[in-house]
Amino acid sequence: MSESSSAALETALAYYRAWTSHDFEQAMTHIAADIVCEAPAGRLDGADAFRGFMGPFAQIVTRSEVLAAFGDERTAVLVYDTVTVPVKNAPGAECLTVEGGKITHMRIIFDRAPFEAARRAAPTG
Amino acid sequence: MSESSSAALETALAYYRAWTSHDFEQAMTHIAADIVCEAPAGRLDGADAFRGFMGPFAQIVTRSEVLAAFGDERTAVLVYDTVTVPVKNAPGAECLTVEGGKITHMRIIFDRAPFEAARRAAPTG
Repeated sequence: MSESSSAALETALAYYRAWTSHDFEQAMTHIAADIVCEAPAGRLDGADAFRGFMGPFAQIVTRSEVLAAFGDERTAVLVYDTVTVPVKNAPGAECLTVEGGKITHMRIIFDRAPFEAARRAAPTG
Repeated sequence: MSESSSAALETALAYYRAWTSHDFEQAMTHIAADIVCEAPAGRLDGADAFRGFMGPFAQIVTRSEVLAAFGDERTAVLVYDTVTVPVKNAPGAECLTVEGGKITHMRIIFDRAPFEAARRAAPTG
C-alpha cells in the first residue's frame, strides 16, 4: 500500500476506516452537510442523499483493503478493494475534497456491472 | 487538479497523455512486456492482452481531463474524466506500479454499466 500524509488524506482515511468498520454514523461525522458526491448513478447533493447512497453499500461490505492513498492539503485519493455480499471483488476509487476538516466533494468510481448482474441473478421475493 | 511529482507519476502521466491524445503506440512504450492489468472484466497478462483491452477504448475517447494525480517512487494514482463516443461521462481511476521506468501493474477502475447499456441500445447490423 502506498500512502502519503496530508491533512485531506487524514480526513479521508478516518472516513474510510469508519465506514469499512461498519460505524457509519462515525463516518458521517467527516461528511459536510452540503457535500456534493458524484457517484456512478449521478450527482448526490447533501449529507442525507449521500447517506442514502453510501449507507446501504457500507452494510454489505465484509472486507476491505486500501491499495493506495495519497493527498495534499485539500485533495485526497483512495483506491481500495472490497469484498461485498453480492460481489466478491469490488474495487473502488474516491477523489475527495476536504475543507475545514469535512469532506465537501467526493467523486466515487466503481463498476456497477457486477452488482447489476448479481441483482438480476437474485431470486425475487 | 491536484498533482504531486514523483518518478512513478511522471511515467503514469506520460502514458496517460499519449493514449488520450490517440498516440497509442507511444503510450505502449511505457508499458512493461509482462504487465499485469486488473481491469473490471478480469486480469490481463502481458502487453498484448493489455493492448487488446486499452487500444479500442483509447479510440473512442473524444476528451479527457485529469482530476487528480499523485505518486511516490513506485506507485501512481490517476483519476480522470473522459468523454467517449458511446458514454458522455466516463470517469476512471488507475493505480499503477512503475519499475525500471515501465508500468508493470495497473489496477483500472471504471463503471462498465453505461457502456453495456449503450451496447444494448445500439442497433445491431
